[in-house]
Amino acid sequence: MFIAKVVGSVVSTQKAETMVGHKLLLIEPYRINAETRTDMTTTGRTLVAVDTMGAGENEYVLVVQGSSARMTPETKNLPVDAVIVGIVDSIRVGKNNVNL
Amino acid sequence: MFIAKVVGSVVSTQKAETMVGHKLLLIEPYRINAETRTDMTTTGRTLVAVDTMGAGENEYVLVVQGSSARMTPETKNLPVDAVIVGIVDSIRVGKNNVNL
Amino acid sequence: MFIAKVVGSVVSTQKAETMVGHKLLLIEPYRINAETRTDMTTTGRTLVAVDTMGAGENEYVLVVQGSSARMTPETKNLPVDAVIVGIVDSIRVGKNNVNL
Amino acid sequence: MFIAKVVGSVVSTQKAETMVGHKLLLIEPYRINAETRTDMTTTGRTLVAVDTMGAGENEYVLVVQGSSARMTPETKNLPVDAVIVGIVDSIRVGKNNVNL
Amino acid sequence: MFIAKVVGSVVSTQKAETMVGHKLLLIEPYRINAETRTDMTTTGRTLVAVDTMGAGENEYVLVVQGSSARMTPETKNLPVDAVIVGIVDSIRVGKNNVNL
Repeated sequence: MFIAKVVGSVVSTQKAETMVGHKLLLIEPYRINAETRTDMTTTGRTLVAVDTMGAGENEYVLVVQGSSARMTPETKNLPVDAVIVGIVDSIRVGKNNVNL
Repeated sequence: MFIAKVVGSVVSTQKAETMVGHKLLLIEPYRINAETRTDMTTTGRTLVAVDTMGAGENEYVLVVQGSSARMTPETKNLPVDAVIVGIVDSIRVGKNNVNL
Repeated sequence: MFIAKVVGSVVSTQKAETMVGHKLLLIEPYRINAETRTDMTTTGRTLVAVDTMGAGENEYVLVVQGSSARMTPETKNLPVDAVIVGIVDSIRVGKNNVNL
Repeated sequence: MFIAKVVGSVVSTQKAETMVGHKLLLIEPYRINAETRTDMTTTGRTLVAVDTMGAGENEYVLVVQGSSARMTPETKNLPVDAVIVGIVDSIRVGKNNVNL
Repeated sequence: MFIAKVVGSVVSTQKAETMVGHKLLLIEPYRINAETRTDMTTTGRTLVAVDTMGAGENEYVLVVQGSSARMTPETKNLPVDAVIVGIVDSIRVGKNNVNL
């Protein structure tokens, strides 16, 4: 899994039938800022994940990829390879809480 | 999943029998332009995806990879690891609609 | 899937029993040349794929990865994660045929 | 699998129901230091893995990804794609023990 | 699959129960040296693979990743995502044998 920030959303009206009704969020995977070690920084990548948690923009989320993305009740058997399985409350690195 | 732009197509007459009749599109994964945040920019990578949506050239599409690419009726049990599952109408980043 | 060029082959006499008799080709994933857009250029990566198509050296092929590589009759249940499922006849990018 | 260092932890109260009670550790994949060959160095990447071993901060662990992350008794059927399956005691490269 | 060089080994006494008795080798994925085309060069990455072939240090091996790593008799149902399925005798690139 990885930490990502929700940065937007994607609208697709013409899509696989089983995907109808599933919210698609635009996310950016984040990593620990190597210099400060007290905040997260973007990897510069952009992915799309199905949201099962009601995540809001600018929130940090936990994202699962691959076949495991189909292991939630909402995504079972769906053609999806990335799903948000948690909203991140806090991240600790060493003795510090990371600024989110 | 990721956003990609359809940039071309691939013809292969000698291919796995179950692949016959499936359209193979050449796609480039795109990411948010880090400077403007209002358009998408290519990652420079080139992939091939099965099209199940009738996607046209220069359209932005939603692509699913891995075993999940076999979770559409058209691709079940096929030896494919990337499939187009949606045509992108619009992308929003923050308060802005991204130029597509 | 991705486009690759067959650049060589691998010989392994001591290998998993189910792999005996399967031809292992050395391949390099290719991408569109970003400057010309009319030819393909190597990504510099080197992979090994099982050949089910009788692909020859210097030919461009279509490669499938992951669990989907086990979805051909020849590779079912094999410990392989990359298989050649097609020989590329032609690639079109925009209005141009790519030089192969 | 890969070697990673446990660098912190993640708290998520709002998460997929089946994930409740599973400890989420922040990890950094490590690689051999190419110059010394006698210690490990960070790849700079940040991932999140479920801990099934009671790993502590700053410990080096063995991490499994993908569908195989669901092959431990603790993670069966969970929507997780990375799990810690071992705590690393020692690493040898050539004739040298790596400094951990 | 990819070619890797065995560079060392990993000891983990505290590990998932099903992993007991399986040898963990430290490997570095290799690629064709782009300049000479007659030898292999390291990618600089470090992975860990289960050895089912009795591979020795400095040997070149064939590595399978993902769910396919569970398709050998020795690794069935194990939480492993990389396994050595062959020892490389020789590699040919174009008309040349690669120096191993």
